[in-house]
Amino acid sequence: MRWRLLAQAANRQLLWQQQHQQQQQRCCRRLLMTTGAQQQQQQQEQHDEHNDNSNNLKAAKYGMATFGGIAAGVLLFKKLDNQQQQPKIESQLTPSPAGLDDEAAARLWHSTVRQDLPTYSLDEVQKHNAPEQGIWITYGLGVYDVTEFAPNHPGGDKILMAAGSAIDSFWAIYQQHNTLEVLELLEGFRIGNLHKDAVAANVEEELGSPWAQEPKRNALLKPASERPFNAEPPLALLGEHFYTPNELFYVRNHLPVPVMQAEQYELELDVEAGAAAGQPTRTLTLAELKALPKHSVTAAIMCGGNRRSEMTRVKPVKGLSWGPGAVGNAKWSGARLCDVLQAMGVQPNEDLHVLFEGADLDPTSHPYGASIPLSKALDPRGDVVLAYEMNEEPLNRDHGYPIRVIVPGSVGARNVKWLTRIIVADHESDSHWQQNDYKGFSPSTDWDTVDFKKAQAIQAMPVTSAICTPLPNERVKPDSEGFITVRGYAWSGGGRRIERVDLTSDGGKSWHVAQLEQETVPDGRHYGWSLWTARVPLSAEQRKQEGLEIWAKAVDSAYNVQPEAFEHIWNLRGVLANAYHKVPVKLS
Amino acid sequence: MRWRLLAQAANRQLLWQQQHQQQQQRCCRRLLMTTGAQQQQQQQEQHDEHNDNSNNLKAAKYGMATFGGIAAGVLLFKKLDNQQQQPKIESQLTPSPAGLDDEAAARLWHSTVRQDLPTYSLDEVQKHNAPEQGIWITYGLGVYDVTEFAPNHPGGDKILMAAGSAIDSFWAIYQQHNTLEVLELLEGFRIGNLHKDAVAANVEEELGSPWAQEPKRNALLKPASERPFNAEPPLALLGEHFYTPNELFYVRNHLPVPVMQAEQYELELDVEAGAAAGQPTRTLTLAELKALPKHSVTAAIMCGGNRRSEMTRVKPVKGLSWGPGAVGNAKWSGARLCDVLQAMGVQPNEDLHVLFEGADLDPTSHPYGASIPLSKALDPRGDVVLAYEMNEEPLNRDHGYPIRVIVPGSVGARNVKWLTRIIVADHESDSHWQQNDYKGFSPSTDWDTVDFKKAQAIQAMPVTSAICTPLPNERVKPDSEGFITVRGYAWSGGGRRIERVDLTSDGGKSWHVAQLEQETVPDGRHYGWSLWTARVPLSAEQRKQEGLEIWAKAVDSAYNVQPEAFEHIWNLRGVLANAYHKVPVKLS
Repeated sequence: MRWRLLAQAANRQLLWQQQHQQQQQRCCRRLLMTTGAQQQQQQQEQHDEHNDNSNNLKAAKYGMATFGGIAAGVLLFKKLDNQQQQPKIESQLTPSPAGLDDEAAARLWHSTVRQDLPTYSLDEVQKHNAPEQGIWITYGLGVYDVTEFAPNHPGGDKILMAAGSAIDSFWAIYQQHNTLEVLELLEGFRIGNLHKDAVAANVEEELGSPWAQEPKRNALLKPASERPFNAEPPLALLGEHFYTPNELFYVRNHLPVPVMQAEQYELELDVEAGAAAGQPTRTLTLAELKALPKHSVTAAIMCGGNRRSEMTRVKPVKGLSWGPGAVGNAKWSGARLCDVLQAMGVQPNEDLHVLFEGADLDPTSHPYGASIPLSKALDPRGDVVLAYEMNEEPLNRDHGYPIRVIVPGSVGARNVKWLTRIIVADHESDSHWQQNDYKGFSPSTDWDTVDFKKAQAIQAMPVTSAICTPLPNERVKPDSEGFITVRGYAWSGGGRRIERVDLTSDGGKSWHVAQLEQETVPDGRHYGWSLWTARVPLSAEQRKQEGLEIWAKAVDSAYNVQPEAFEHIWNLRGVLANAYHKVPVKLS
Repeated sequence: MRWRLLAQAANRQLLWQQQHQQQQQRCCRRLLMTTGAQQQQQQQEQHDEHNDNSNNLKAAKYGMATFGGIAAGVLLFKKLDNQQQQPKIESQLTPSPAGLDDEAAARLWHSTVRQDLPTYSLDEVQKHNAPEQGIWITYGLGVYDVTEFAPNHPGGDKILMAAGSAIDSFWAIYQQHNTLEVLELLEGFRIGNLHKDAVAANVEEELGSPWAQEPKRNALLKPASERPFNAEPPLALLGEHFYTPNELFYVRNHLPVPVMQAEQYELELDVEAGAAAGQPTRTLTLAELKALPKHSVTAAIMCGGNRRSEMTRVKPVKGLSWGPGAVGNAKWSGARLCDVLQAMGVQPNEDLHVLFEGADLDPTSHPYGASIPLSKALDPRGDVVLAYEMNEEPLNRDHGYPIRVIVPGSVGARNVKWLTRIIVADHESDSHWQQNDYKGFSPSTDWDTVDFKKAQAIQAMPVTSAICTPLPNERVKPDSEGFITVRGYAWSGGGRRIERVDLTSDGGKSWHVAQLEQETVPDGRHYGWSLWTARVPLSAEQRKQEGLEIWAKAVDSAYNVQPEAFEHIWNLRGVLANAYHKVPVKLS
């Protein structure tokens, strides 16, 4: 039976490969079918043996978790530790529970120790991270050698992103792997078990440190700093999801992540100015917030420093070196801030502001803080929500559990996480992040001359875009009609819809308009981003070149357009880095 | 007495000159004081003679009109014609009416025929339009030779703008000329009277033509087209007034100006879609509109084609060749559209639009039309007004008398003049100007490939700025500290405040932040423009150059910035021409 299934899987894999050919970037054309067949034979033998074993329910419980594979692995090891009180990993293989079909059983394999195979440390796995050294990957407890398979991977060379490390995070997102065929194919490449220390080491914590209770993060996030944790996802993955998967969403923490208990959560509300001033402080529990009318809004959140790493090439700036991945797009759901404020009697007043405080504290116990104009907070088209859900799941700890204020169209810094206090006042937040950060200056303003009082705090963000694929210096091959396909995102603040994205491969001599994927919501409250795809034709002359540079520029509904280059928008904090995205590629 | 007054005037002139030195751009430093003194002697002799005469009340009636001096002159001549039924201009000088003081009397001189002086045709005047040919100007009926005075003009070489023509329009704006001293100084330069045909020719009309009843325009407006009339003011004047004088405000007419009678005016209101649909048509008279709460908003209006003449240099575009003067800033007052719509029961609805029709008809009797989203119309912060006043005066005919809808922050084309009908509908206006004009396209879209359905109608405009002084190729002299002073305007659509204007004289190696003059109204409803002044330092090296180029770029409150150049924002209609304004100047 296994042989038949493997043959089917191989056939389906070829079919899938054909269907997904457009997604392949550097797919090796030398399909090693002979080698593949030999390998399948070996796999079958291994599987015959493996199939004699089956799985216990405890392993199933964790192994079937689709998110956070590494974390699940850790939990599994902890469970084992607790039960057995001994360091040595033992087989948990037990007879297959009645009623577990082939596919359900297959989902347990990577959570299962194979006694027939050796155990590898993470160090050993990490050495096999390139075709020359062999490509090993881990999934749950399994170690797999996919060197021969990699060139045939239907998803192209994305598989190399996981070389020498875990694929769990990828598979959590790419659910097409979650089939019997793929699981069987993978188990065919299994060469061993991952040593539990390799995983357990990741969860060692410095007790007592403010960082002791940081949440577990997805391994795909590339940290710009570890403490506080700031990280962005790989750009190629970011551009593939209209709704950024929560675990891939960039993380921008200014301080340690606070530990929040839903049961004890209270949001404090104070009105210090305006017609409704003077009333006693009110509080809202999480349950009370959830009892208010639920409002959902699709909104991209972007760090003010997104793409700073490009600006800093002109002249160094201070700040985390973000690539173009410090942005994500999600559906946020919660209570509308305007409903909460109106219930408190707050009236429109152009002179007032709404201040937000988070539960994250600096070393002097001051909370993270920011503010927005009351006019934005009260505007029903402003769509400001006290969100408890992100893409229809509860917020995770890194994104503000249990409540984050979402200020659509505004810079990320105003979307205060772990929200604990809202104040209506006649002044902006006096926090560092409102007063002395997240502001733009002239290119000739330096740290000797800067006066932060002279610039306004960034609220709505300017129009921007980025090319997600191809990646810089990637080798691309024009298709049979001489086109290359370019994909990316575009966004503008203030609810301005993206009107157009133009691409050029010849320095602007010719421009090609991208197809947009965007929500059909009205302009002015179009807070989500747009993904785009463009087929850019290359001339015969261009095809003879070794490489070229692709430029993307977006235009928003106010027909604002990105500036051409960073030179004249440079600013000492490296914010607002929205120049054309220019990506050099090599041609095959 | 005259001698004393003239001496006083000369002293005050010097004082004024010192005070206004910053405004001088090419002020000749050779103060010809000797010549000036000689001239004053001559002037005194002339005045002594002149002073024996005085003025009649009829001339006073028109001569004292401060606006539209040329038009006043025409009216005067008509009056004379009617009274005298003969072509020959006769003296209207009569004894000074009792009680008319020196200054009031002086205001009549330029409306008075001087029998002691010859009569000149406009042709003869026009020949004297440069220092080499002598500088003659006219004011009312007077012809003046100001060749010797011009280098000493306190307002700098702006006087040369009127060389060979009338100063009436300038003086209507620059009220500082309206003093006894200045009027006496001017009369001292008088050399003759203007032949009545020179003026009368301007009012000949082709009866029966749709253009027969066009209004009289200020002579300073530079026409981009005569029929329909489209004209912009001189840039240097535009930049001097935070509120653009009504008669200097650019005119953008798509069709002949309709003749409107206030008494018969009716605004028709139809609700064709939404919750309030189906009610009978309502009408509002002008009196009824004026009875509604009066709301004022400062708003710049800008033509979608402003600065097209710069874009067309990259590659020709279709459209009127506007300079940077197709913009003006005014205080508009009238009834709020949201009040009118709410009174009709119109509710917020993201799918609806508000259509406007003007009384101006195309040759097939279709009215000019445009539309805006209902969300903008209903938003109290949108500040849409049915305006009957412009800068606290009734709208003039070119600007939509008696009612123009002002859509602050949106392109001029949506601010429909001679408004006769408002329709709430589930679609945009189907007018040419909404559907097939005033849209932006990629630089590679040409007339063979353009599909107007694929772009959205321009509503909010992008950020822009322009240098008003110095003018292109003007000769500028750095001040004693090595600075040059640059002035201009900046504006962004959608209520976005101008945050900063940066200037550079070295291609962006160094940027200098301008001082802004702007209203203190909240961002998001900051619909007026900002005027700005920057002192730009020149390096020793730059001062050795023959000339240099000054660049201006503005940044709005969403930190959107102008694009650097026209090349990559070029579009076939030449709209949205908001690249850096780059002005070459010569150095003295």
